[in-house]
Amino acid sequence: MSAKGYTLTESDLVPLSIGAAFLGTGGGGNPYLGMLRTREVLRRGATARIIPLDELPDEAWVGAVGGIGAPVIGFEKIAEGGECYRAMRAIEEITGNRMSALIPVEIGGSNAMAPIIAAAMAGLPVIDGDGMGRAFPEGQMTTFSIYGGKREGPSALADDKGNVVIVKHAIDDVWRERLSRNVTVSMGAGAGAAGAPMSMDFVRRVAIPGTITQAIEIGRTVVDARATRHNVVERVVEATGGTLFYAGKVTDLKRELTGGFSRGHAVLSGIDRWAGSEGRIAIQNENLVLWVDGKPLITVPDLIINVELDTGEPLTTEVLRYGQRIAVIGLPAHDLLKTPEALKVVGPKAFGYPELDFSPLASTKKAAA
Amino acid sequence: MSAKGYTLTESDLVPLSIGAAFLGTGGGGNPYLGMLRTREVLRRGATARIIPLDELPDEAWVGAVGGIGAPVIGFEKIAEGGECYRAMRAIEEITGNRMSALIPVEIGGSNAMAPIIAAAMAGLPVIDGDGMGRAFPEGQMTTFSIYGGKREGPSALADDKGNVVIVKHAIDDVWRERLSRNVTVSMGAGAGAAGAPMSMDFVRRVAIPGTITQAIEIGRTVVDARATRHNVVERVVEATGGTLFYAGKVTDLKRELTGGFSRGHAVLSGIDRWAGSEGRIAIQNENLVLWVDGKPLITVPDLIINVELDTGEPLTTEVLRYGQRIAVIGLPAHDLLKTPEALKVVGPKAFGYPELDFSPLASTKKAAA
Repeated sequence: MSAKGYTLTESDLVPLSIGAAFLGTGGGGNPYLGMLRTREVLRRGATARIIPLDELPDEAWVGAVGGIGAPVIGFEKIAEGGECYRAMRAIEEITGNRMSALIPVEIGGSNAMAPIIAAAMAGLPVIDGDGMGRAFPEGQMTTFSIYGGKREGPSALADDKGNVVIVKHAIDDVWRERLSRNVTVSMGAGAGAAGAPMSMDFVRRVAIPGTITQAIEIGRTVVDARATRHNVVERVVEATGGTLFYAGKVTDLKRELTGGFSRGHAVLSGIDRWAGSEGRIAIQNENLVLWVDGKPLITVPDLIINVELDTGEPLTTEVLRYGQRIAVIGLPAHDLLKTPEALKVVGPKAFGYPELDFSPLASTKKAAA
Repeated sequence: MSAKGYTLTESDLVPLSIGAAFLGTGGGGNPYLGMLRTREVLRRGATARIIPLDELPDEAWVGAVGGIGAPVIGFEKIAEGGECYRAMRAIEEITGNRMSALIPVEIGGSNAMAPIIAAAMAGLPVIDGDGMGRAFPEGQMTTFSIYGGKREGPSALADDKGNVVIVKHAIDDVWRERLSRNVTVSMGAGAGAAGAPMSMDFVRRVAIPGTITQAIEIGRTVVDARATRHNVVERVVEATGGTLFYAGKVTDLKRELTGGFSRGHAVLSGIDRWAGSEGRIAIQNENLVLWVDGKPLITVPDLIINVELDTGEPLTTEVLRYGQRIAVIGLPAHDLLKTPEALKVVGPKAFGYPELDFSPLASTKKAAA
């Protein structure tokens, strides 16, 4: 986490998009398109200032924004660009609170960039952090929701055409997610979302800190390693504090767009030291569980990241293809996602795997230090 | 249309529910349950005053409210009662306009009673009129929408659990309907809806006048005719200015709940002077077209009303059953539904019958006068 904040430059954007795809664990929306849109906004003269969690006073209002929808849609329905901005403005109008800064709902995929675009349009800074430290498929799976700050207020959805819908009151955040998901489906399976204003005091306590900077650093590592075309995956694993869990070739792939989600699985045939074994990854927008020969090795909330074996390029769900050779990297989730309250919402059981207990990965970074 | 207004009494409710079912042409929600809920509210001491269209000043705000959903749901998911009231209050809160009266979106089915319940809860009068003079399946099919007054403002949906969703801005009323329908599906296929405040001046020009009183009068005719058990259908036809178009036995019935609508058809085998012929009625919540031996005899927006042959009881879509003996009555729609602008929205082509031209029924009432 930067103590001072910095202004995002165009040269940060490719690394940010790669790092966001990495932390997106398959989801969060296509980061390349998000990168192009952000670049366009910066080239038009807008400024994107990234500020640390300790900069603003306790009573400042912060808005969490992000895209909602199935990631596969990112290709077919290019966001118009102002969706999150219009959703955020609708929240300001209905609550009477003016935002002092925006923060990503999730750092994963294009949702690292959606708040940067909205903030640039509004002339606001973006807080270096997010509500997941990764991507998750549903809105109640943020630390903002888990630790309670967002429940009371309204949330908003805006589409590319000019429609704006407010969830004025939801009895809980699962209902808020259900209502929002259905609105998103009728908007064409993609929309910009904005949550109720949160106090900076609350955000400081519950946001996953420093994740924009973390994403940029991960992206730089991938870019640098790729330039030398040597041990790319090993260098990425080392730099991120992750562990290489599997390498294999995609032999079966199932993705269905149901209820506004991309659901399915990928089956991998092992290569190198995994030759002869079978890997399997369950997907709901994001990668949920990695099994090898039927044994679960990584589960949510820990991060399961697919990268291209030769280039280290993180692969989002919608670009997975039959025959791809991929490495599967595991990365420990932030501690805020591993409390008993959090696991109720983002643990394997919450995703429909009652037989799986969450067994946290160790950070290889900490062990090495 | 009463020139003075009156207070609704408990003895008006059964006639109102029968007349509303009649004008509902199969849809609008189960009126018997609506009647029970209204009676409950009146017995708790609330007052429901029905006022004519000319009572309030031009600048008074009027709210159109009604239930939204598939009529078959009325049986399985009993409305909690406060849905329309909460939706209306959310609109007042978001716009800052206080309502002076409510008006039914549609007079058909339980939607004749939903505004009476909401108005009684709010201590407001109900305007004697509505936006359809019947029931239609979609929200843009009101004279309020056709003649333009509602487009700008927000609309609200509230469910039985406490969720409230606002369509803050829709690019048009077809989008408003699409978004609202999806929200309703996620609320469990039934919700209370409230439109943006309309000025009394506007409502006076576009509402179908006197339909609450008309429904009560139709209901009284049915009740009286039934008491004598003699020529019930003939007497109802005569009193309403309608025409008996067909009598038959239900031999085939298809109803599917898709996208928040009850869609399907009923096939009838003719009786009496129609013996040997086949009747067919297309349904989307409401009855859309009557064909006899393949020839279209009545189409929307004119009213196609199924009543039980022996009792004159109007049959809503969800109570149609195989083997029922029914009479099919046609009634001319109000002139406000037959302008070129209106037919674009509520004519047979708008319902997916490009081959059908609207050929208006004549009123037998006028002819007799």
